Amino acid sequence: MNDEYFMKRALSLAEKGMGFTSSNPLVGAVIVKNGKIIAEGYHESYGGNHAEINALNNAIEDVYGTTMYVNLEPCSHFGKTPPCVNRIVKSGIKKVVVAMKDPNPEVSGNGIKILKENGIEVEVGILKKEAEKLNEIFIKYIITKRPFIIMKAGMSLDGKIATRTGDSRWVTDEKAREYGHILRQKVSAILVGVNTVITDDPTLNTRLNKIECKDSIRIVLDSHGRTPITSKVLNINPSNTIIAVTNLAADENIKAFKEKGAEVIITPAKNHKVDLQFLIEELGNKKIDSLLIEGGGEVNFSFLKENLVDKVIFFIAPKIIGGKDAKTPVEGEGVECLEDAICLQDVKITSMGKNIMIEGYLK
Amino acid sequence: MNDEYFMKRALSLAEKGMGFTSSNPLVGAVIVKNGKIIAEGYHESYGGNHAEINALNNAIEDVYGTTMYVNLEPCSHFGKTPPCVNRIVKSGIKKVVVAMKDPNPEVSGNGIKILKENGIEVEVGILKKEAEKLNEIFIKYIITKRPFIIMKAGMSLDGKIATRTGDSRWVTDEKAREYGHILRQKVSAILVGVNTVITDDPTLNTRLNKIECKDSIRIVLDSHGRTPITSKVLNINPSNTIIAVTNLAADENIKAFKEKGAEVIITPAKNHKVDLQFLIEELGNKKIDSLLIEGGGEVNFSFLKENLVDKVIFFIAPKIIGGKDAKTPVEGEGVECLEDAICLQDVKITSMGKNIMIEGYLK
Repeated sequence: MNDEYFMKRALSLAEKGMGFTSSNPLVGAVIVKNGKIIAEGYHESYGGNHAEINALNNAIEDVYGTTMYVNLEPCSHFGKTPPCVNRIVKSGIKKVVVAMKDPNPEVSGNGIKILKENGIEVEVGILKKEAEKLNEIFIKYIITKRPFIIMKAGMSLDGKIATRTGDSRWVTDEKAREYGHILRQKVSAILVGVNTVITDDPTLNTRLNKIECKDSIRIVLDSHGRTPITSKVLNINPSNTIIAVTNLAADENIKAFKEKGAEVIITPAKNHKVDLQFLIEELGNKKIDSLLIEGGGEVNFSFLKENLVDKVIFFIAPKIIGGKDAKTPVEGEGVECLEDAICLQDVKITSMGKNIMIEGYLK
Repeated sequence: MNDEYFMKRALSLAEKGMGFTSSNPLVGAVIVKNGKIIAEGYHESYGGNHAEINALNNAIEDVYGTTMYVNLEPCSHFGKTPPCVNRIVKSGIKKVVVAMKDPNPEVSGNGIKILKENGIEVEVGILKKEAEKLNEIFIKYIITKRPFIIMKAGMSLDGKIATRTGDSRWVTDEKAREYGHILRQKVSAILVGVNTVITDDPTLNTRLNKIECKDSIRIVLDSHGRTPITSKVLNINPSNTIIAVTNLAADENIKAFKEKGAEVIITPAKNHKVDLQFLIEELGNKKIDSLLIEGGGEVNFSFLKENLVDKVIFFIAPKIIGGKDAKTPVEGEGVECLEDAICLQDVKITSMGKNIMIEGYLK
């Protein structure tokens, strides 16, 4: 039982809040006395108690002289709840082990400073990389005020997302599709192109058997306002839908979307298309901290071209579809030379049922 | 030290003959006395001693009463060399552990029978699966008289083998390309389409720094006899080249290929293209037991469509190329419905430098 062990536990507690804490971070805390965990807590939902407070409240023994492990620097400011450092200081905790500092430049280091000023030993950096990965969405958003953008695709081994006739249900197997729903759960919003709405009429809700679900906001990229008024996104829970159009869309269509209950974002037209930089800025303003792109090849390339994607997740099914005219996950113009290819960092490969999941980061 | 341990050693000895034993199998043998290996041998090259004989010749102690581990049933017939079973019986070996029976239906089981008749204990099946995999080429060829066909491709994560402008050097990294040369070393012949010869003018030789190399036979799929007379395959070691044409190719071109020293196989025209079934039959007749397809999307699909591929090996580079017009590894017509997709079995994923290698079997 060492520092890493307890921090791992804090991280896995933190993960339990996934999907419910936006735009707060995922935080878990454990309190350790004589090498034994005597209390655990995590930030369960936005507006609720912070992890540290939950852990302190859950303690079954006196916490005086103990060590707290928490994956993020305790807060020192009044937000929805009072500052955690006050309560920690009062509790008599002797040492706080922190995985990473608060990424918010305005407050970073303040909590640690207050703890130290009050005679509490503080250690920073245990499992920092894991902690940063867990809160990658929060970190990106708090620093840039723009959503963390994940591009997802499911394809055959030969790089096709559908057959030449458009048959795309299903390229990947059940396990991969279930993980797709976990991803939807994890983000604030899901984005598709209008052609997907016209062709497939998806609900874009989150379907998971075992765990509590929340539906993410659905965003349709629809430069000319062609989303069918009968489509599911405008008829099932339409207040959860944003239609992103340009000023090229007809006023009566925009009016109709609004009458259905959907929100409409009108962006300038950039080459007759939605200005993605403008849109993403707007989504950030609306506190959307994360976006899952479930587009086809054109939508995917347009986001990559604008350098907007933070992470890609590709599922590869061990099958071959073939076809010069079959759709691929990234189309558009593409890069001209190989030296301009978009390289992924921190690539991770995971077996998932019969499929292979490849994750990687951009920049 | 158990049976699996010694059989593993026999298998890794066998592997040393890779590329030099065609159309014989890869075989390794170890002789074990009191739990210790006292002799090792393998089949080093076609026409040379079999593994069992090499092991017996290399013994540093008396082999009387010992156990031999060999990954393939010892032969009982006179081929290029006398039957191994005779020598084993004479040597006084007490027990023979065999990974798999001889796959040749004409002789399978005979060697084991003779050993048993001579009072030698025989055990069959230790690491059978591994042994079958090691000799997958031999097994296919001995049973069908047709080559074992491997389709290889290197692509970006989004399934592109080149950019829209045709830039393809290099999609994958050095490690993956080096493994490509190991594959060339492993097979009897490499096949490309004529367009590759026209565009890239490759030498198609085997380039490996560390180990002894042999160049495989180069086969160009060239229905209309368009291989440029100045191309490297017709000017560097041309006797190692086969141009596969149809009767639509001009006689003077065929004559020119032959004058360069290349071999020409003329197949019937099937939809104006080389009849692949005919060609593969012919290659089998020429004792070509294995074929590596390094084609583009059209060649790859034509082999898949004819159900000729035994194994695929895809290298995936962690980069995105994009492009509606960028080439993909399998094109042609492709399948119409997902239920017709070509599914891979026994899929294996290996990290290779920054690339990912995915192998799988058809049927």
